Amino acid sequence: MNYDTNNIFAKILRGEIPSFKVYEDAYTLAFMDIMPQADGHTLVIPKFAAETLLDIPADMLAHTMTTVQKVMSALKSTLGVEGVVLMQLNGSAAGQTVPHLHFHLIPEHLSKLKGHGSAMGDMDKIKALAVKISAAL
Amino acid sequence: MNYDTNNIFAKILRGEIPSFKVYEDAYTLAFMDIMPQADGHTLVIPKFAAETLLDIPADMLAHTMTTVQKVMSALKSTLGVEGVVLMQLNGSAAGQTVPHLHFHLIPEHLSKLKGHGSAMGDMDKIKALAVKISAAL
Repeated sequence: MNYDTNNIFAKILRGEIPSFKVYEDAYTLAFMDIMPQADGHTLVIPKFAAETLLDIPADMLAHTMTTVQKVMSALKSTLGVEGVVLMQLNGSAAGQTVPHLHFHLIPEHLSKLKGHGSAMGDMDKIKALAVKISAAL
Repeated sequence: MNYDTNNIFAKILRGEIPSFKVYEDAYTLAFMDIMPQADGHTLVIPKFAAETLLDIPADMLAHTMTTVQKVMSALKSTLGVEGVVLMQLNGSAAGQTVPHLHFHLIPEHLSKLKGHGSAMGDMDKIKALAVKISAAL
């Protein structure tokens, strides 16, 4: 694997570009997707230089999944959603656009999702959702 | 949570109905989806009575993700695929149809997936793929 240290999520992890954070601990970061496929679309990433699921050691992955569980629980309690799609794309051949391992948490029915998000969302709305979700974390 | 002990994956785990297994250990089972969205569409489930990602303890989830990594690696090496979509639906509101936690591993581009699989696949073809994938596990 040739991890690209200048991918956008690596820059977010280094604090070089901003994000709407909802949760952070020693191993992981959760922040809003700014091209949301549904209200509350959140991303969880490990603080580890992995491009796909095959590039991360088991213990770091376990930490990441614990954060996925926490954020999913917060989405359900704060947004009143019943269903959440968890999605994680491995390789550009699968549709992965940012080469840093990331889990999509999308409070929506699968049938309503249309591929990867490609349009910028309403930043004020996304920021307000981040505040709401992070309050439960 | 009211776990339904008669869901189809619980029956597969108890050996009451057959499946095309590709991998099994003390904590997890991997088998072919018989309504595949792409060739090699495989499911990984924990041997634990969880309906969604929020119903499983961290250690059992960690075991499950280790199996997800193993199967994904086998899909790439045996089928020659470059991209794999990992998807996991939480709640019928998200499109979950079987109420036992399961991870979909789909060797396909996200843009080519159309909702949840709903048509039975070619059983001979699925069986042959299971043999091929399991040989790498």
